[in-house]
Order: sequence, then C-alpha cells, then structure tokens
Amino acid sequence: MFTVNKDYLSLRGSYLFAEISGKVNEYKAENPGREIISLGIGDVTRPLTPTVINALHEAVESQKTPEGFKGYAPDLGYDFLRKAIAENDYLRYGCDIESDEIFVSDGAKSDSGNIQEIFGRDNIIAVCDPVYPVYVDSNVMAGRTGSFDESTGKWSDIIYLPCTAENGFSPGLPSKTPDIIYICSPNNPTGTAMNREELQKWVDYANENHSVIIYDAAYEAYITEKDIPHSIYECRGAKNAAIEIRSFSKNAGFTGVRLGFTVVPKALKSADGIYLYDLWKRRHGTKFNGAPYIQQRAGYAVYSKEGQKEIRENVAYYMENARLIREGLVKMGYEVYGGINAPYIWLKTPDAMTSWEFFEKLLKNANVVGTPGSGFGPSGEHYFRLTAFGKHDDTKEALRRIGKM
Amino acid sequence: MFTVNKDYLSLRGSYLFAEISGKVNEYKAENPGREIISLGIGDVTRPLTPTVINALHEAVESQKTPEGFKGYAPDLGYDFLRKAIAENDYLRYGCDIESDEIFVSDGAKSDSGNIQEIFGRDNIIAVCDPVYPVYVDSNVMAGRTGSFDESTGKWSDIIYLPCTAENGFSPGLPSKTPDIIYICSPNNPTGTAMNREELQKWVDYANENHSVIIYDAAYEAYITEKDIPHSIYECRGAKNAAIEIRSFSKNAGFTGVRLGFTVVPKALKSADGIYLYDLWKRRHGTKFNGAPYIQQRAGYAVYSKEGQKEIRENVAYYMENARLIREGLVKMGYEVYGGINAPYIWLKTPDAMTSWEFFEKLLKNANVVGTPGSGFGPSGEHYFRLTAFGKHDDTKEALRRIGKM
Repeated sequence: MFTVNKDYLSLRGSYLFAEISGKVNEYKAENPGREIISLGIGDVTRPLTPTVINALHEAVESQKTPEGFKGYAPDLGYDFLRKAIAENDYLRYGCDIESDEIFVSDGAKSDSGNIQEIFGRDNIIAVCDPVYPVYVDSNVMAGRTGSFDESTGKWSDIIYLPCTAENGFSPGLPSKTPDIIYICSPNNPTGTAMNREELQKWVDYANENHSVIIYDAAYEAYITEKDIPHSIYECRGAKNAAIEIRSFSKNAGFTGVRLGFTVVPKALKSADGIYLYDLWKRRHGTKFNGAPYIQQRAGYAVYSKEGQKEIRENVAYYMENARLIREGLVKMGYEVYGGINAPYIWLKTPDAMTSWEFFEKLLKNANVVGTPGSGFGPSGEHYFRLTAFGKHDDTKEALRRIGKM
Repeated sequence: MFTVNKDYLSLRGSYLFAEISGKVNEYKAENPGREIISLGIGDVTRPLTPTVINALHEAVESQKTPEGFKGYAPDLGYDFLRKAIAENDYLRYGCDIESDEIFVSDGAKSDSGNIQEIFGRDNIIAVCDPVYPVYVDSNVMAGRTGSFDESTGKWSDIIYLPCTAENGFSPGLPSKTPDIIYICSPNNPTGTAMNREELQKWVDYANENHSVIIYDAAYEAYITEKDIPHSIYECRGAKNAAIEIRSFSKNAGFTGVRLGFTVVPKALKSADGIYLYDLWKRRHGTKFNGAPYIQQRAGYAVYSKEGQKEIRENVAYYMENARLIREGLVKMGYEVYGGINAPYIWLKTPDAMTSWEFFEKLLKNANVVGTPGSGFGPSGEHYFRLTAFGKHDDTKEALRRIGKM
C-alpha cells in the first residue's frame, strides 16, 4: 500500500504567485473591461535581443544535418558555455572559479529548489525574512522545517533572519548557528543588496561555524553601486563556504528560454570531508539530462561583445522603471526601499495596512497588481513589492493611478 | 555544522554510461587511430526533421518582438501542447486522459528521477531486473533502498522482478507486495515489451494491493505488434493505479532538445485519500519553471500530419538497424532477444562470459561499444545490449566486425 510524502501535506497554501493570479482573475471576472497593469510577478517583458535570436536560429539550423546534430548534452553543460561563464562572470571580477566548477541547468528556480537535496535531512536552514518562497518550500518538502505556527507564520525548525527597515534590510548574525544559510543579493523581494563588508561577515561566519551559504545572485546584472559584490567569490574564503546560483532570466530575458547555472567549488566540503561537488555532480547526472544545446548556444551569445551591450540596454530600460517607481512613490509620501541595485521596489504600506489589504486596495482602486510582502515571510508584513519589469508606459500609467488613489 | 545527504554515499560507482565512456576513452588513448563504433548509449543519430526545424525557427522568430515574446511558461505546460498530447497519444488509443492530467517537462529522465519524491520515504519499490539505472539510483538517494549486498548485487529493501529468457522477460508477480512498481515497456534494456494481457495483470495487481505503477513508455513509438499497448491507460482501471512517463527523445530525436511529459490521472489516490495529482502539481510549481516555449512549439509540430510522417520514417530507419542486428547475430549463432517493438537488442553473451568480459572483447576485437547487461542489474549478467540508434553503415560495419571476431 503506497503512501505519500507527508511533508508535502505540511506545505502552506499554494505557491504565492498562483494565489495572486487567482485573486486577479476573480477581480477581472467581476469587473470585465478593466485594464489591469501587473507590476507583480518578476517576469521580464522585453523580447530576446538580436544577438540571442541569431544564436538560437543558428543553433536550430545546425540541427537539421547529421553532421551538426547534437544529441544528449554533457550532463554538466557544454565546455564552450562553461568557459565563457568562468571568464566573464568570475575571472573578470577576480574570482578564481574554474569552468568545471560550473553546472549548467534549466534555470535558477530548479537549482534553488533542488540544491537542498544533497544535505542531511536534519540540517537546520536559515533564511532571510522576507524571502523567495522556493527556499522554504523545498525544505518543507524535504521534512527539514518542523511544524508551522499559524500565529507567528513561522516554521519551528527554520532560523529566520529578519530584514526590515530597522536593520537596513541586512540581517544580523543569528544566536543559534544554522547549517545552511540562504542569502539572495541583490535581494528578492526587498530590492536591497549586501555590500562587500556585510557579505564578508557572512562568509567568515560560515567558515568559522562550518555552515554553508547558498548564494542566489540571480539579480547580479542590476548592481549599479561599486561596493556591492557581483559574486560571493569576491569575498575571502568563499570557495570553502558557498555555493552560488545564477540565472540568464533577468539579465538576458530567458524566463521562457530557461537557462541558469550553479557554482559548486571543488574545495567546498563538510566537516567530515565530503565534497559537495561530487554530490551535486551525481545529482545532475542522475536526475537531469543536460540543458538543451540550443539554449546553451543562446547563453554563449549573451557573453559576446554585442550580446553584453544589448543586455546592458535591457537592464538600463528596467532600471529606468525602477527609478520612476522609486521617485514617484517618494513624491507621493511613501516609504520606499530598493530599486538601486535591483529591479524591485519595496514599499512600506501606508496607514499600517496589512500587505494583503494594500494588495486589494491597489487592485481595486488603481487596477495595479503587486506582491504582498507577507507572502515572502512574516517580516514582510506591512511591506509590498513592485517590479520594474513592466513597459515604460505601463509603469508610468500605474504610477499615475497610484497617485490618484 | 552542515552534513551531507548520507544516502548519496551509498550510491554504487558512477552512472553506468559514465563508466563505459571512461573505459572507451582509455582504450582510445592507448590505441590511437582506431575507429570505434558505438552501439552503446541510447542516443539518437538522425537530425531533427524539417517540420520540427521549421517550428523551432518560427518560435525563435516570435521571441524578437514584445508582442510575440513569451516569458515564464505555465508551470504545467502550454495548453496547445497538452491538448495535442491528449488527442494524439491518448484519445486516439481510446484512453480517457484529459489535457490537464498531462505535465510537460524537460524530459523523461528528470521525471523518472523526481517522481519518487512525492511518495513516503518508507515505501518499498519493485523494479524489473535488469532495469534503467535512474529508477534505482533516485530511490537510493531518497534512502528508500536499504543496504547494498556486494555478493548478490542487490539492495536489501528493493523487490527485484527478474526478467530473463526463462520467463520471456515478463516478470511474475512478487511474493511480497511492493508499494511502488516501476515498469518500462517497451523495455530498456531488454528490448522486449509486455502485451496487453500481461500489463493488465499488473494493473489489476496494483489496484488490488493499493500499489502504484510508474510506467515508463519512452519507447512507445517503436511498437510494431498489435497486442502491445501504447499506453498503460489502455488497461482497465489504470487511471486508479498508474502514472505514465513519456518522452520526445526517441520518437522525434529530442535527446538534445529536451522535452517530455508525465501523466498523473486525477483519480489516482493513496489508500488514505490523498491525490497524487495535487502533489506532483505542487512539486512542478515549486522546483521547476516550465519547459521552454520554443521546445513546446517543436513538440506540438511533432503531432502535425507532416511531423508524424517524418517521425515514422525515423523510427523505421532505426528499426531497420534493429532487424539487421537481430538477424545478423542470429546467423552468427547468438541467442538474441528484443528489437521487434523496441530499438534495443539484448543478447546472451557466448561461452558464459560475464557482461563486462564481453564488453572488453567487443571493444578490443571489434572496436564496437555496447552496454554490459550487468550494469542494469544482477539478472542482466551474461547479457549485453546493442542499440539500433546508429547509422546504417556503422551498424553494418559493426556487424561485419562482430562476425569476424
């Protein structure tokens, strides 16, 4: 008699964005004809750039002859892409990461969700609060989080690192030592970023306590300030303490193309001497069959001179939205954070409204969709996320409507 | 102090094909200039067909304008593809599967490896022996298989269903009842297939015992005989007892394109009333971000009239290889199975050689690479797998060399 994974039954509600989408559809059904502007989910709106389109066409074209045809890709990724990543994302920033420490995948969400699997089931995780829901949910599914307390909105076995205006959204070291520490910087959802000194503090802490940091740098391309590190490997000792997850979704607009990668340094090992590299390699080889050749050629094209120029233009486009939202909201008297090194604006809800109350107000009075901060964790309550991924005109119109609200 | 998933440390050796590739590379290095023919790994060699190439180009082209651009795909797949699958792979065979019971993914290997995750960690699995290594390894990683016995080559907590020439490669019902039963038909590696009556026996058994069948039908397109079911849902009661995994790799040559799907019927539930559909949906939504739009358009094109004609031609090409190998080996006096409803030929090694001895002999004396049967499980010992995925000329040359050996 088969049984199910009981840990799945502990999961809270549905995935946040599914819940939002449900509410929006309900509102649309009740109010036909309203033009809703979404600054909600972090999906891009700019099309793929010419260099990427050309690379995709070329790769497709090569698949029509027996000579050019590519079957199964190498499990860990094609060398041409892994080398380009090592050179452009690491060596360029002085990080000594080798191409075979890079594991190419179908995206950062899969990697973020799957990485916990190589750790012991009794490991204690720490997450920033608020946080990208996948870190928590994937650990709930693995039975690592204990029981959920409805009154606090917290899991008994998770160490929460509150990130609020009071601490400048940079969490202090915890009193109890976690085994696995998730850090996302530039941060989703707060739109803030750790500077070099703050991140070094965490790397040192991890090395001293034999903790491991899962560093999500999916928004690295949005960094504008000099003292914000682009990779955790810019910190001393990080190769002994951290795994880094990256994406092509937000820089090159690959949300629908699907390509990402994870760096597991060969030096990174548990206190009893087991190398995480070997475990992640085994997982990749057993439960994944390589990212598509076509996609890997497109990722490679992103690193060309023209490709880099194009993605900088796209990032600048979105960051102009971020500026518009930030400055617009400040003028309206909102308390606003983020949007300097990240495509997210994090605002304090006015009049002590809950995040969901503000969500409803924005949806009904301005027909604008954003994301309730409480959906990212208890310390996100009374905050709200807007994204800079919209079109300029939509963003301006959304601000106009919010101003009139 | 973090620790690793100890279950990973129980895994045996490296993934079978990595081991073979290591041995081949070693031989090549020692014997430069030898032309090696691989009838080993099950990768296709025919290029993508014109209809698929066109669909890929069109989908790529549509991504260069804001209007045509597609960001995140629906987690479970685009409706256009799910509907085409339901109509062509199920309704056409009289199987009452709805399009929203189909979960589109990046391939059957990922799904085969991940599906175990929705089941209780104390569930007992049964596998055919020999078997595709991913079923076993993914369960080892989850701690479901007990300890490995070097002398028997078996895991203490797995129920093995021997498939040998003695039982016509169709396993009998086990004496102890498993919770989860993996069946692959047409079978990898034996190249044999269950007929309707044999499969119905397993569906009835699963329904009577509240077991669940994970049915891997990746080789469905190779079926030539009338009484072999194309889907397990052709059997009475299968919607209450089985999950089916499918692939575009072997019919349409998508090994490097990456696209597959899994059917989880809404009716399928555990004895205590939990629907597997809900759990798999949650996993898909949490740890996966949808298959790429471009790939899904290509998959859709496979179901067009022209697309179907082209894949039938490709399958016929490979099956001509299967015929050549089968008939060639029989003439040489080998005991040969499979190759009628599957692209695999399963031969008994001559002179009671072990599978690896025959591998070495074939590599050294014929410069032909195949796959040792024992790599698929203890009952695969003294068997050997050759695949029909090569080019005609290579296949003929390989046979000529084996004949001279």
